[in-house]
Amino acid sequence: MKSPVLSKMGRRTSEPPISWLMHTALSRPRLISLAAGFTDNASLPMAEARAALNRVLRSPRTGRPALQYGSTAGDTTLRQLTAKHLQKLDFQALTSSSFSSSSRVLEPKSRTRTKDENDPYSPTRLLITSGSQQLLYLATEALCDEGDIVLVEDPTYFVYLGILQSRGLRARGIRLERDGLDLARLEGVLQSLNRRGELRRVKLLYLVSYFQNPTGATTSFEKKRAILKLLKQFEPAAGHPIYLLEDAAYRELRFTGKDVPSALAVRGAAGRVIYAGTFSKPFATGARVGYGILPEPVFTAVKHIKGNHDFGTANLLQQLSARTLASGIYEKHVMRLQKRYAHKAGVMKQALEKHFPAGVEWWAPEGGLYFWARLPRHIPAGVKSKVFTAALKNDVLYVPGELCYADDSTRRKPDHEMRISFGSASEADIREGIQRLGKVLRRL
Amino acid sequence: MKSPVLSKMGRRTSEPPISWLMHTALSRPRLISLAAGFTDNASLPMAEARAALNRVLRSPRTGRPALQYGSTAGDTTLRQLTAKHLQKLDFQALTSSSFSSSSRVLEPKSRTRTKDENDPYSPTRLLITSGSQQLLYLATEALCDEGDIVLVEDPTYFVYLGILQSRGLRARGIRLERDGLDLARLEGVLQSLNRRGELRRVKLLYLVSYFQNPTGATTSFEKKRAILKLLKQFEPAAGHPIYLLEDAAYRELRFTGKDVPSALAVRGAAGRVIYAGTFSKPFATGARVGYGILPEPVFTAVKHIKGNHDFGTANLLQQLSARTLASGIYEKHVMRLQKRYAHKAGVMKQALEKHFPAGVEWWAPEGGLYFWARLPRHIPAGVKSKVFTAALKNDVLYVPGELCYADDSTRRKPDHEMRISFGSASEADIREGIQRLGKVLRRL
Repeated sequence: MKSPVLSKMGRRTSEPPISWLMHTALSRPRLISLAAGFTDNASLPMAEARAALNRVLRSPRTGRPALQYGSTAGDTTLRQLTAKHLQKLDFQALTSSSFSSSSRVLEPKSRTRTKDENDPYSPTRLLITSGSQQLLYLATEALCDEGDIVLVEDPTYFVYLGILQSRGLRARGIRLERDGLDLARLEGVLQSLNRRGELRRVKLLYLVSYFQNPTGATTSFEKKRAILKLLKQFEPAAGHPIYLLEDAAYRELRFTGKDVPSALAVRGAAGRVIYAGTFSKPFATGARVGYGILPEPVFTAVKHIKGNHDFGTANLLQQLSARTLASGIYEKHVMRLQKRYAHKAGVMKQALEKHFPAGVEWWAPEGGLYFWARLPRHIPAGVKSKVFTAALKNDVLYVPGELCYADDSTRRKPDHEMRISFGSASEADIREGIQRLGKVLRRL
Repeated sequence: MKSPVLSKMGRRTSEPPISWLMHTALSRPRLISLAAGFTDNASLPMAEARAALNRVLRSPRTGRPALQYGSTAGDTTLRQLTAKHLQKLDFQALTSSSFSSSSRVLEPKSRTRTKDENDPYSPTRLLITSGSQQLLYLATEALCDEGDIVLVEDPTYFVYLGILQSRGLRARGIRLERDGLDLARLEGVLQSLNRRGELRRVKLLYLVSYFQNPTGATTSFEKKRAILKLLKQFEPAAGHPIYLLEDAAYRELRFTGKDVPSALAVRGAAGRVIYAGTFSKPFATGARVGYGILPEPVFTAVKHIKGNHDFGTANLLQQLSARTLASGIYEKHVMRLQKRYAHKAGVMKQALEKHFPAGVEWWAPEGGLYFWARLPRHIPAGVKSKVFTAALKNDVLYVPGELCYADDSTRRKPDHEMRISFGSASEADIREGIQRLGKVLRRL
């Protein structure tokens, strides 16, 4: 029983399941953790961050603003650089593929002259946050009241499920395929909500669109377009816009294949897309600079709420991000990082092929930090399962897939999956960890 | 009319009144702003921050953790250093005065051995946040449901009023005297809430206890003790604890007189005090590192909610704070800063004596960033007043006192006051600004 002095939110908010895993890890010194979503320690840009901060703090012209309060939406230069960076990503993704015919034509040069509402890459729609995590929180605060329904991938990012739980929101999971949501299921869920008169409680669909946490799946551009079209169809019944909240946290960690344009690049969709990005994962994780692109009226509401949270992300970190973006250091680092993760993912793939029994399927990602493994349906791998217990006993930790599923009474929660990360473990630990895990699986 | 797609919070949250003032300032290049609560630009610790960051990022042992994710509650070393720092402040404040007889006896040396629940300075009760602002937000989230009542000083920090407004909370203002709340009024309000059966809606009293924003008033230790005693008396009727949320953001900016112990130092009060502190104002403002000391069950609830917000304040900034605290650089800087503000406050005081007409009263502070001036009761100084308009026309800006009063139907909102800051303006601008303001006042 939680104390009655706490608010409903205070009573509802529970320890994230991953914390328990992390505590467990700390108490076993020999344990190899393939659970954490941490980034690769050895490749953190120490020298780059140091040089950039030195430059920022060398002259009063840049040093003083870096150590003073800023504005709630963020540093103007960083907002411009970030918007340009994002537009460039989408432009390259569009032109390197066959998408351009039916999507917004992007002309980076002319963009700076048309800062209007309809330009999805306008810096005036961009807000700097403390990691993209804060953007997810703020957008949900600005849109959802207690009892509202948020559509999510099934499975999805468990910390976002924690936000929903904490805020008294209901989640409806939509089955995930290799290339994104199962569209027929999405339509089915929308129809059923409509029949029950609950569509007005739906304000947004949350999508981790690149190398998804936990499955590593990437949503195709076609599916983004189809999802936006479907949501739009149901808007009249809902009585208000239904937003696509695109969480692109892992986007720049692609190590094979071609980048997919964001939902912002879908023609006519800018008014319905909230895009959450970050410099934490591809650059200085401990600097925690993220950002969001938001349409009105969400942008203004989120900005005002952020004013109450912290009246703006630390300027010093924003200056660090601006400096590394402007100088090209950022892009160079991202390329190095992609190679590093490609290599580590390769090491994990080889180990999985060598050590995992044939009955276990897995998805190899094109980027990000995670493999997703499925045991035969009748073998549970959840927190209380024999597999998890035996793995722990053998000093190897993974994230049980069941933690990534919403509480959704319309289906049984799958419990035969595991998220396995190559992000923070060394190559030797990846090999040894997968070997230990394989041994456990073969024995059971 | 705000859009119906927004949540109730999204619709309620409005632009902070100060934003409008800041925009106004930007559009008038000759304008002298005595409105902003920014810190003194020239004294921002550029060289100190640069040296500390260089050291942190020089070796992988400290550099990698600084650029990696950390834990939600904050870096262990920083939490220990901060707890010790705070305990030292209270210890010195107690021993340099006559308070010690009736308050908790502090023994800094033995503290490290008794990390129990009852030790108000235990690092286990300390949480690192993005400025103390975030702590105010989190504590309010963890305790208050829509419709709850928060007791505040009348006037109080307007951004906190914005949080209450945004979250659908009601504020009750308690008259402020030179040395803190009017205790008889506090008791009267508690009694009247009790009679109306509304005491169960009261979870906390918010107090800006040092050089208050906006009045500069400091709450005496006797009053802190008396307030805690009063709140305790009404707890049985409330049916739950009533917390004192002590916002000590300006505490270390004292330039004259003796430090006052915090409410944590009141014997037996640790279970009812939430203390919000910060390194933003006394050191690197743009690094935005704040902290809170919280009793259970608030600590755990706030920690979990912070996990959803951002899973921990940027490690790089925490390492910067830890390094400057441990090396003594922090303390040295604070001493320099105190001298600087003493001087600037002196300049403002002289200017006020010289230029303000006799009918205007003002409170000179012993620290912080603000003077508080009261015109004769019949002369309004609010946003739409002749005084404010004329001041703006003469290129000088202040914060109208009316913005700092809660919407409280039990009294008329005073509108004849002004908050005048010496924080960010140069000495020349302080002189010139006050002269312009004095001219306006004398003419009206």
